[in-house]
Amino acid sequence: MEVRLAISGFGNVGQGLAVLLGRHVGAYRRRYGVQLTLTGVVDRLGGVADTSGLDPQGLLEAKRARGTVAGYPGGEDGLKGRGFLERSRAHVFVEAASTNFVDAEPGWSYVRDALELGIDTVLASKGALALHWSELMNLARRLDRTVLFSATVGAPVPSLQIAERALIGAEILDIEGIVNGTTNQILTAMSRGLSYQEGVRQAQALGIAETDPTLDVDGWDAAAKILILANATLGSALSLDDVRREGIRGVTKAQLEDAAGRGEAIKLIARASRDGSDVVASVKPESRPVNDVLGRLSGDDMGVAFNTVPLGQVASTVHPAGESGGISTAMTVLRDVLNLARDRGWSQAPEG
Amino acid sequence: MEVRLAISGFGNVGQGLAVLLGRHVGAYRRRYGVQLTLTGVVDRLGGVADTSGLDPQGLLEAKRARGTVAGYPGGEDGLKGRGFLERSRAHVFVEAASTNFVDAEPGWSYVRDALELGIDTVLASKGALALHWSELMNLARRLDRTVLFSATVGAPVPSLQIAERALIGAEILDIEGIVNGTTNQILTAMSRGLSYQEGVRQAQALGIAETDPTLDVDGWDAAAKILILANATLGSALSLDDVRREGIRGVTKAQLEDAAGRGEAIKLIARASRDGSDVVASVKPESRPVNDVLGRLSGDDMGVAFNTVPLGQVASTVHPAGESGGISTAMTVLRDVLNLARDRGWSQAPEG
Repeated sequence: MEVRLAISGFGNVGQGLAVLLGRHVGAYRRRYGVQLTLTGVVDRLGGVADTSGLDPQGLLEAKRARGTVAGYPGGEDGLKGRGFLERSRAHVFVEAASTNFVDAEPGWSYVRDALELGIDTVLASKGALALHWSELMNLARRLDRTVLFSATVGAPVPSLQIAERALIGAEILDIEGIVNGTTNQILTAMSRGLSYQEGVRQAQALGIAETDPTLDVDGWDAAAKILILANATLGSALSLDDVRREGIRGVTKAQLEDAAGRGEAIKLIARASRDGSDVVASVKPESRPVNDVLGRLSGDDMGVAFNTVPLGQVASTVHPAGESGGISTAMTVLRDVLNLARDRGWSQAPEG
Repeated sequence: MEVRLAISGFGNVGQGLAVLLGRHVGAYRRRYGVQLTLTGVVDRLGGVADTSGLDPQGLLEAKRARGTVAGYPGGEDGLKGRGFLERSRAHVFVEAASTNFVDAEPGWSYVRDALELGIDTVLASKGALALHWSELMNLARRLDRTVLFSATVGAPVPSLQIAERALIGAEILDIEGIVNGTTNQILTAMSRGLSYQEGVRQAQALGIAETDPTLDVDGWDAAAKILILANATLGSALSLDDVRREGIRGVTKAQLEDAAGRGEAIKLIARASRDGSDVVASVKPESRPVNDVLGRLSGDDMGVAFNTVPLGQVASTVHPAGESGGISTAMTVLRDVLNLARDRGWSQAPEG
């Protein structure tokens, strides 16, 4: 069937979605029996909604030419909010604006509006999950809507799918991971002799670090990811302030050299574990053997390990391909959309 | 709701299932809203079927005392086949007899009978999948029944769940893995100075290798696993004879020492990749860097890596806990049962 998508946010991830839909919408129709149609996109300045479908290439061109998708034919400066969602008549709302750890906006308002309008929601931004977990999950439960967010926990690492499908029936004792590629890239560069500042600049030049790397290097991003993983898989309801957090600014060349001398490497490790009936979560630099499941990860590799009973340690790691992070994250948004379509019975048997 | 299970085979895996159900059936009811009830078990000598439910502990005791579950109250010597399945009135049939690569029996007959009786099927044995893939999948499709088999591809490694749920929408280019724990254990022992024969004996003493290790050391088990993975995730329909296969008997101490000198280790690598419109699969010893995603795996660790577009290399590895292989494999059978229950809508919302 046709599945209508509305997107808030047209930066790296939103544009990545448009690129992937432009490339693969026919293949998805054939393979999964769903016609994915973009019927609404908004960015900071405006938007466009049209239930007959928006052309991904046209959206990318409008953004390039005018700086906003409002430049697409029929677009409107200032279009936003519930009115935008209503006009898109979407089955699925994708929240892909920048993560905001101060008040989780505009995502938090959009997600509530979407759920109240009966629209299932896929999140690529972490603010609403990191600041309003319980309220968001209770709202979705009450309204019987699905909220998916596999793009938010170290996008390509299949940690949520492993927990939900492969560890069902088992008990997860604790989780540890390298969930922030930027800091891993910087620490890897420092272990090869660069200073912290040089490492940051190199990561920026590679398109991995933001102009302001604060959210990464001070551990905010990793803290949000581990709290989302913990809440989703250990049943906790942590908020960002509950995560003990230490970033990588304090890591020195001497520490890295000491670690290397022991066959180890310093990594920013995010961890969540049960403590009685509580769950405690932390982010901090740790020294790990270089052939350890996490210690071996260099550059912008990421990974998550679950310690379980009775299956032992079940880990997953990702070594990104050459594709941009926007394309890769957009792919993980689309996987949530495709899984949702399957679980809701929207997918039909493939054609041939 | 109540989900009735019938099992063929009461060796390590069947007994592991009884142990896990004895321990956790109440927890599964609370967590997943399903009451898992064993209503039939057969082994080589006989069986028992009772729709009011069989006591797991009683089954284990009958097996210990009489060598067959036919010794359970109401059991019958010689009970088997379609009659057994009909009397169990199962929702799910679990095929847990020994893998047979000659004619896939008794599993292949049981699976066909179960599907024809409208019973969804979970396989822990590989014979029917490795020898009759197309016929089995066509039968299940025609009868609209589900066949799950995540226990057959290196049991705790979540490779099928990753392919199905986390890589949906992406393209898998190739798969490589260490999927046989016994040969990895033997190669690890040899790399620490033991001879091949000493390595085999040590793995047998650890309960990892069988008395006759042929299926492991000659690569049959790994070949079956990679063909099942390839067929399930790359759309092929390979049979066991299609897999190029070289085991570990030819690996010498000199080769292991050479590899170690280069910072590498020799591993039995199973691989499947696209070759035009075909899929080719192989099993053979290869030298890998010791901090490589597969090269670092020692002892009875296992792992599978998917090379994908656009997500790059997505890998999963498992380091088993102290639990026996039977318990661990049984857990992976139960995860298939629990996922099936969820997907079929048999699970209700958890109690509290």
